[in-house]
Amino acid sequence: MTIPDTVEAREAVDLLDRTRALVQPELRGACDTLPGPMRRVAMYHFGWEEADGTPAAGAGGKAVRPALVLAACQALGGDPDRAVRAAAAVELAHNFTLLHDDVIDEDVTRRHRPTAWTVFGTADAVLAGDAMLALAVRLLAEDPWPRSAEASARLSDCVIELCAGQQIDCAFEERPPEEVTPEECIGMATAKTGALLGASCAIGALYAGAGEREVRAMDAFGREAGLAFQFIDDLIGIWGDPERTGKPAGADLAARKKSLPVVAALASGTRAGAELAELYRGPMGAAAVARAADAVERAGGRDWAQSQAAERMSKAVGELARAVPDLGAAGGLLSLAEFVTRRNR
Amino acid sequence: MTIPDTVEAREAVDLLDRTRALVQPELRGACDTLPGPMRRVAMYHFGWEEADGTPAAGAGGKAVRPALVLAACQALGGDPDRAVRAAAAVELAHNFTLLHDDVIDEDVTRRHRPTAWTVFGTADAVLAGDAMLALAVRLLAEDPWPRSAEASARLSDCVIELCAGQQIDCAFEERPPEEVTPEECIGMATAKTGALLGASCAIGALYAGAGEREVRAMDAFGREAGLAFQFIDDLIGIWGDPERTGKPAGADLAARKKSLPVVAALASGTRAGAELAELYRGPMGAAAVARAADAVERAGGRDWAQSQAAERMSKAVGELARAVPDLGAAGGLLSLAEFVTRRNR
Repeated sequence: MTIPDTVEAREAVDLLDRTRALVQPELRGACDTLPGPMRRVAMYHFGWEEADGTPAAGAGGKAVRPALVLAACQALGGDPDRAVRAAAAVELAHNFTLLHDDVIDEDVTRRHRPTAWTVFGTADAVLAGDAMLALAVRLLAEDPWPRSAEASARLSDCVIELCAGQQIDCAFEERPPEEVTPEECIGMATAKTGALLGASCAIGALYAGAGEREVRAMDAFGREAGLAFQFIDDLIGIWGDPERTGKPAGADLAARKKSLPVVAALASGTRAGAELAELYRGPMGAAAVARAADAVERAGGRDWAQSQAAERMSKAVGELARAVPDLGAAGGLLSLAEFVTRRNR
Repeated sequence: MTIPDTVEAREAVDLLDRTRALVQPELRGACDTLPGPMRRVAMYHFGWEEADGTPAAGAGGKAVRPALVLAACQALGGDPDRAVRAAAAVELAHNFTLLHDDVIDEDVTRRHRPTAWTVFGTADAVLAGDAMLALAVRLLAEDPWPRSAEASARLSDCVIELCAGQQIDCAFEERPPEEVTPEECIGMATAKTGALLGASCAIGALYAGAGEREVRAMDAFGREAGLAFQFIDDLIGIWGDPERTGKPAGADLAARKKSLPVVAALASGTRAGAELAELYRGPMGAAAVARAADAVERAGGRDWAQSQAAERMSKAVGELARAVPDLGAAGGLLSLAEFVTRRNR
């Protein structure tokens, strides 16, 4: 984790630390009930154990989504302690998608370690993912809180949306980059990233006993903040400072990623967009990466992504104000939104 | 479906037909809500559409598990109409495991058609399976029946057990057959087959408003009947009449399957067991298959499996009598148990 450099960032880091302290025992306790090999995959994936079963010091992810559940609950006057199980369920659902997406995308690194499927094989990783989703469902089904069934329905709708997002992402890989539209790309980011941040906030609202209007506004807040995050993440993927991101400059370009600024540039109908398309068809060495970054910028992809990120954040705050008219009570949520959209820069 | 030749079989076939008529609209309606490509995979997998989206006449599986839900509910004095959604949820969970197991096992045929992953690719098949499990959860979460959360907790526990069973099955494949014990093999069959038949009956009991004792006995009934089914299925896989099974004689031996009679024979410490182990190390042509079947029989594998099947069925009926003291009310369940353990012979 980078050193927080603003008041909001310090607040967010504190909130994430407190969330992990509250939610991790529930999360780890749930994973501990899994039978043999699926338990090992889960413990490894969360960073609590090494591949051979010895203890590891991993923190099990930043816990952004559980923190959103608890902060949303608190912002609407609920008792976050009651929502700890729901927060753990959301984190399990998130990690279920990570396990499956890593298998599908054949990604080999996650949280600075080899992905679970590279260590335990595809079958065990898929099955451990399945079991994690089932654990999430069980946590909510066994939660006596009267709105837990609503939370379960929302979470399952969200899982379907996450799967749809991953499916769209895979389908993009098979199309020439210049055929993917920015709208499609935003739709994909909404499903893959916005949906679960929205569901986290909405579930927090349900655990505060909120009405339908507040729940919907909380969902919209999380979705818009999630989209802002994605735009900024994609900007970082091209122009992020390697010293802060830990990745080489232009990493997303080197990987020919169809990120939001790239897709916008390719669809711009400009000469720079055509140059970028041409570059993406060839080998992406350091010089090509530098030229591609320049082309994205000249084609307007950088400005567009920056203004979209700002617009989404402003929409997010508007939605939050609908749910929590006294924004002073929503400090936790605002600092989290601020934090995720500035992380690691 | 083969022509029913006993009163029980006719009753079971009627029950399955009525179940499909009740449950299929719910099931199909749920799958119809899935986004784009996942909907297509689901419609194909259930046999309602061809790969290109044109309508198909498939019946979507025999619906044994939904029939158990409805019959268990009825046997305990409940109204099966109220349990239709739960029955659809169980069938979705079952088909989620089929989609994932086919990917993991690289099986190419299911219900006489190419498996979904061979048609739509691994990613879409895995994601459609994920989405089906989420649909099952949503059906239960949106069901106003007061015990639906308990049903959801049971179903999620069962999903974890199904995943564990599949995991054990994969692990067996990597071990020499003579190292797998009959007890391990029974444990695997309990997890892979017994668990969901048990959960189906238990969920039916929950929807009848039954007490914990009845629910547990119904679960045990389904599990024991499921094990009886597995023993008989494995016997058919070696000695089934090809005209009735539609598979060549000794199909499981030709595939070197570590089925229950085979594992028992290998673990018997007899000369015939050693012969079988030797045969399994070589090519399994027609002559080797015939010799292997003979070796399993001489090693006691056939007798053991037959007596186990009978013992499990008798245990199942004992458990059923615990849940439904007047067995006359449990005719549907008995005919289903009878049916699944005699099918296609």
